[in-house]
Amino acid sequence: MIRSLYRTKAGELRVGLDAADIASALRDPSGLVWVDFEGEPPEVCEPMFTQVFHFHPLAVDDALTETHVPKLDDWADYLYIAIHAIRYEHGAENPLTTHELDAFLGRNYLVTHHDDPIPAVQRTWDRCQRDARQVAGGADHLYYAVADELIMGYMHSVEAIDEDLEDFEDVVFERPTSETLASVFALKRGLLQLRRIVSPQREVFNKLARDDLRVIDRKDRIYFRDVYDHLVRLHDINESMRDQVSGILEIYLSVINNRMNEIMKTLTIITTLFMPISFLTGFFGMNFFGPTTGFDLWTSWPAFAVTLAVLVLTPAFFFVWVRRRAWI
Amino acid sequence: MIRSLYRTKAGELRVGLDAADIASALRDPSGLVWVDFEGEPPEVCEPMFTQVFHFHPLAVDDALTETHVPKLDDWADYLYIAIHAIRYEHGAENPLTTHELDAFLGRNYLVTHHDDPIPAVQRTWDRCQRDARQVAGGADHLYYAVADELIMGYMHSVEAIDEDLEDFEDVVFERPTSETLASVFALKRGLLQLRRIVSPQREVFNKLARDDLRVIDRKDRIYFRDVYDHLVRLHDINESMRDQVSGILEIYLSVINNRMNEIMKTLTIITTLFMPISFLTGFFGMNFFGPTTGFDLWTSWPAFAVTLAVLVLTPAFFFVWVRRRAWI
Amino acid sequence: MIRSLYRTKAGELRVGLDAADIASALRDPSGLVWVDFEGEPPEVCEPMFTQVFHFHPLAVDDALTETHVPKLDDWADYLYIAIHAIRYEHGAENPLTTHELDAFLGRNYLVTHHDDPIPAVQRTWDRCQRDARQVAGGADHLYYAVADELIMGYMHSVEAIDEDLEDFEDVVFERPTSETLASVFALKRGLLQLRRIVSPQREVFNKLARDDLRVIDRKDRIYFRDVYDHLVRLHDINESMRDQVSGILEIYLSVINNRMNEIMKTLTIITTLFMPISFLTGFFGMNFFGPTTGFDLWTSWPAFAVTLAVLVLTPAFFFVWVRRRAWI
Amino acid sequence: MIRSLYRTKAGELRVGLDAADIASALRDPSGLVWVDFEGEPPEVCEPMFTQVFHFHPLAVDDALTETHVPKLDDWADYLYIAIHAIRYEHGAENPLTTHELDAFLGRNYLVTHHDDPIPAVQRTWDRCQRDARQVAGGADHLYYAVADELIMGYMHSVEAIDEDLEDFEDVVFERPTSETLASVFALKRGLLQLRRIVSPQREVFNKLARDDLRVIDRKDRIYFRDVYDHLVRLHDINESMRDQVSGILEIYLSVINNRMNEIMKTLTIITTLFMPISFLTGFFGMNFFGPTTGFDLWTSWPAFAVTLAVLVLTPAFFFVWVRRRAWI
Amino acid sequence: MIRSLYRTKAGELRVGLDAADIASALRDPSGLVWVDFEGEPPEVCEPMFTQVFHFHPLAVDDALTETHVPKLDDWADYLYIAIHAIRYEHGAENPLTTHELDAFLGRNYLVTHHDDPIPAVQRTWDRCQRDARQVAGGADHLYYAVADELIMGYMHSVEAIDEDLEDFEDVVFERPTSETLASVFALKRGLLQLRRIVSPQREVFNKLARDDLRVIDRKDRIYFRDVYDHLVRLHDINESMRDQVSGILEIYLSVINNRMNEIMKTLTIITTLFMPISFLTGFFGMNFFGPTTGFDLWTSWPAFAVTLAVLVLTPAFFFVWVRRRAWI
Repeated sequence: MIRSLYRTKAGELRVGLDAADIASALRDPSGLVWVDFEGEPPEVCEPMFTQVFHFHPLAVDDALTETHVPKLDDWADYLYIAIHAIRYEHGAENPLTTHELDAFLGRNYLVTHHDDPIPAVQRTWDRCQRDARQVAGGADHLYYAVADELIMGYMHSVEAIDEDLEDFEDVVFERPTSETLASVFALKRGLLQLRRIVSPQREVFNKLARDDLRVIDRKDRIYFRDVYDHLVRLHDINESMRDQVSGILEIYLSVINNRMNEIMKTLTIITTLFMPISFLTGFFGMNFFGPTTGFDLWTSWPAFAVTLAVLVLTPAFFFVWVRRRAWI
Repeated sequence: MIRSLYRTKAGELRVGLDAADIASALRDPSGLVWVDFEGEPPEVCEPMFTQVFHFHPLAVDDALTETHVPKLDDWADYLYIAIHAIRYEHGAENPLTTHELDAFLGRNYLVTHHDDPIPAVQRTWDRCQRDARQVAGGADHLYYAVADELIMGYMHSVEAIDEDLEDFEDVVFERPTSETLASVFALKRGLLQLRRIVSPQREVFNKLARDDLRVIDRKDRIYFRDVYDHLVRLHDINESMRDQVSGILEIYLSVINNRMNEIMKTLTIITTLFMPISFLTGFFGMNFFGPTTGFDLWTSWPAFAVTLAVLVLTPAFFFVWVRRRAWI
Repeated sequence: MIRSLYRTKAGELRVGLDAADIASALRDPSGLVWVDFEGEPPEVCEPMFTQVFHFHPLAVDDALTETHVPKLDDWADYLYIAIHAIRYEHGAENPLTTHELDAFLGRNYLVTHHDDPIPAVQRTWDRCQRDARQVAGGADHLYYAVADELIMGYMHSVEAIDEDLEDFEDVVFERPTSETLASVFALKRGLLQLRRIVSPQREVFNKLARDDLRVIDRKDRIYFRDVYDHLVRLHDINESMRDQVSGILEIYLSVINNRMNEIMKTLTIITTLFMPISFLTGFFGMNFFGPTTGFDLWTSWPAFAVTLAVLVLTPAFFFVWVRRRAWI
Repeated sequence: MIRSLYRTKAGELRVGLDAADIASALRDPSGLVWVDFEGEPPEVCEPMFTQVFHFHPLAVDDALTETHVPKLDDWADYLYIAIHAIRYEHGAENPLTTHELDAFLGRNYLVTHHDDPIPAVQRTWDRCQRDARQVAGGADHLYYAVADELIMGYMHSVEAIDEDLEDFEDVVFERPTSETLASVFALKRGLLQLRRIVSPQREVFNKLARDDLRVIDRKDRIYFRDVYDHLVRLHDINESMRDQVSGILEIYLSVINNRMNEIMKTLTIITTLFMPISFLTGFFGMNFFGPTTGFDLWTSWPAFAVTLAVLVLTPAFFFVWVRRRAWI
Repeated sequence: MIRSLYRTKAGELRVGLDAADIASALRDPSGLVWVDFEGEPPEVCEPMFTQVFHFHPLAVDDALTETHVPKLDDWADYLYIAIHAIRYEHGAENPLTTHELDAFLGRNYLVTHHDDPIPAVQRTWDRCQRDARQVAGGADHLYYAVADELIMGYMHSVEAIDEDLEDFEDVVFERPTSETLASVFALKRGLLQLRRIVSPQREVFNKLARDDLRVIDRKDRIYFRDVYDHLVRLHDINESMRDQVSGILEIYLSVINNRMNEIMKTLTIITTLFMPISFLTGFFGMNFFGPTTGFDLWTSWPAFAVTLAVLVLTPAFFFVWVRRRAWI
């Protein structure tokens, strides 16, 4: 889907422009054009990029192939900016998915390109339709609006992850299973992925806030600085969540080890209690004490009484002994 | 609660000013105004911030939304500074809680904003009431007084944590339980959180001590440098406490493993001692040696004597053997 | 094999030049010479390098001895660049092999030297033969074409590794064996090796993109910048794959530990169920209750009924007990 | 104890000056005054510091409160330098103790302040008494003499630690106990502490060697450079000793695990050898083969011979089997 | 042993000079003097260093005391350079030993000092005797020759270590013993030590290649750059070998754990197979079924047949059960 939006010098709003309209609108330095490509194949986008907007082939290549790390290329008259939206799905095998949002930002236009629908873009688009003030601030301010929405999405995802982590921690302490372990490892992979995106994305907004770029108004830098601050915080939170995941795995191992200890103690107590007295019953089961062997004294009443006493006292003694040895 | 304090040029102290009083007091360049907002909702604070003090909307936003990392924004005529107070509660599930303290620091005014009561602010306020010299040093010196009190609170918390850590270490060596483990992990999370605050806070005071800021007197920089030194030290202590927590977990695992070893050794000794002689009693319990089978020699007195000897010697032999194999 | 290619000033393409032809071709500043040495022994290469191209002895040494880390030396009139091609072989003992590609890049010539055939070189060579435009961009652009092909090979290898890693992760969760472990460790070594190459290689292309080198056209820098971006991304992917491998090993240990727990629980249940009732049968096997001893009451019908009941109830009781102790 | 020492312009040495003497001696720019405060309470030191030497209140505060990290503050006319002496006590619960040494270093005076006696200070003091040349080099050279002595003490401690580490390593391989573990962890904490001191101390001497400080002669910088080199080396040794401690803990775990393996193997062999033959004896203990049951053939001589053979061969067979399964 | 070598301005070579000869030779700016001190006590070296060569006392101290980290001090007219030779001895308790080589490098002289014979020095010395061209390049080139030889020795050691590591890896997978573990830990310590030397040594040669030193010819810098490149590579290899050692220890633990699993499984199978049927034999061994008790039916032929069947089927059933529970 290609959709376009043009605010004229006079502040009037037009949508649904064709290629020729866009080309003429671009010649209006105080207008503002936003063209959004969603899920369009390269063969549709490329001609527009090269013939209408005259972007550099390398920049077009970057925009049309997925899986780039966030980056900012300054092509003097326009910027190529690639950032990523994220989505967190509780309990999925790969709980964190990312969607690339490529943007070309010129003095009087913004071109956005993405394969999947991105809620942040949709919301900004809707707001622009409703409220012309959104597009009054120039192309850089419009891009800020999109980026700000997108980073807000990060915040929501991160909060959801944080809650899940606390749940995992409780579960691991109480009733750790292989499934918990699998979920924690899936989340760990997700956080790894998140770090790979947040770090360069932070650098992108640092450049937008600090560098002397032709298409960014000096007075608008403070807004990108704000996004940068959010990303710094996100990076820190991500690091600490990664530490938390490591902590959960440490707890998991400790809990498993503790449990093993309990099991072995049980086994040891049982064995220690019954082995000696089983031996004793075996002893008197020997045929030396059979009816005709002349060891009648060994099987008399007093002997039986002593044996019974030993059968009771031996486990008691061993129980005390094992308690001392194995710190039960 | 909003409270205000105004030292006039003449050194006179007034409290309880309304918005209009504040606005006029701000026009006195050699006076000093301190307005403290405690637990006030945004809708109360915002008009004051924007209309009386004319702060930038982004700065106001930063101040009114919680959970920012410590930061310093230089808005030329004033600074926006966010720092955090901490509180350590021994034995709580989340032993370390943090409270944000936002401040706007101008040439002749200080605006502080916080959701929860912060003892450091309260103490400084009380001192200002008692002793006019506290406010004689200008707005930057007043802010230093607040920050210094707040950092002292860090020191006390850190000392309390340190003591708890030493207790945990002793407990883990002697009698580790799941509850100890849970407490140690809670503390670990707390230290993680602390690091996320101390690091940027250190940078805030580094900027106050080094950067050429319009609202900070050159001669007062040394005081912020002092706070910075405290934070450097805090950071180091925090790092080393984190290492200590890791150490405690290593000890925990070692102790658990050692104990398991003891348990298994006990089990192995018992089994090794009784299995062979139990077999022997089983052997003579076989019906081959029954009264009518003609194996009478096997159940005669000498055989019994030999058997008894074997029943005593076998465990002795196996005990020696197992000692050699299992290094008991 | 030595092969050579010469695009004259007029755009004409000649191949198979001898040393004299090359020497004269080098004197044509607007021509382009590419000489490729594949698997030639040092004694063949060295005279060419020193007498025809007049390279510095240290640079020649670097080119003729293998196993250098990627590096770039600026010899003013030419660059010595060593980079590596990689090949990933699924399931091999050393799954990742690297092949050094040395290059001397002058204003109007490119000399490549490698011991093993490198597909990227072959493909670029073939393309030059087919399409004269490939060699129209100058020596630096030709080198970019080779490097770009080579880095594409990295991408393919990395994707194959990524797939294998996901397979390993599934296997480890379900059915970990020593062979899996060996494969994972082999892959780990491979990633270690990869990192040792990618990091300095990234720096090489950073220099090509940033430094003011005499033999690189200012306008061609953007192409090397593109290769650099790929390598940055590769470095990040490699780091995260290393983390993934560590994660797999953590899973392995957790799974092994879990399994051990299961085994021990089984052992403990069995022992706990049968030891007490075995003792009981031993008790009644003692010769006190032999036919002639006068304990007839102990072996009467009611006693047998009670004994049977105990034989059934004891395991039931112990099963409940062990469940509580060992959390089965 | 306060002691003082004054070398006059003429090279004459006087000791035991009172406050007034010191004040007048300070006015002699080519003399040298050393005042040492040992274990004096703040109320004694403070008046001297502020009234006789006119130090800044913040610097005085730093000097009088303990537990600062090493640091250097340049107050133009004098330096405030805090460094630490260490002492290693073999086998103590906290084997490493540190003692702060505060110093004020001016052009013609040195003020040292410490709570506990520090051998390095004592030794330098004694040497000054014996040999006037010690104080001929100016205040900065005198401070170097103290610092050099103090760092030598580090070297001795570090060597003692190193020896203990090697002993621990041997012990852990041969006969690891809980006490060894406790000692190793105590040492680990000590090394952690050492690192926290050496790192900033190194920076202190780096500043003394590099920065353009008014009270340090250009030609004396090389001496502080030498101390700095020692501290760099100490830092490296400390790092490597920390790695060594980690190694010892890894060995500990491996040895414990190995031993557990041995124990379990012993248990498994015993169980495997005796369980089958115990079953066999139990089999023939059944009352089916009692004297009156008509199974006489089962208890005849040949049956007994076969049984005996089985009783010998079964363990042999199981021994081979368990060897194959459990790699004994 | 002190040996000396003097190339006169005319290119003539003289050896075995005494102190006076050396002093006069040093006055020849276009000559070249090399004096090598091997294993000489400080009291022999010091007078030569201070009186003949006039080195600074601190530099002489550095040279005469061992165990310095590699370093370079620029004393304007000469450089003091300390580097280390290494030797790897397969299978020794401390497999890696280092030998310090101190050098004073002037415009027209080189002084080397070492306690133990260093092969690299010997080889360079021999070559100088045979071939005057070796000493034609000036003092800096001579030092390069020595350093280059020495670094080559590193390469050989590192290759030997690498081979040993691969052997260890194989051994650990197949048949890990305590001795293997001890060797691996010894090697680990060696690599730690190596890192402590290579890192600063790299910096030494970086300075020689980059800094503007009076005694190094601008055109000779490229040679030191070459040594620097070797050391960079060595550092990388060392890091990766350290990772490899960690990997071996991880494998060790995994293999041990796997083996433990196998052992426990064996034990569990044996126990599970024999405990139930042993109970059964015990059951029928009870004296309820004695000849005179009237339970004759329980010991009749059909009962025996049923019992035999149960004795065979029970283990079969339990084997299946344990397989399901313990994943044998």
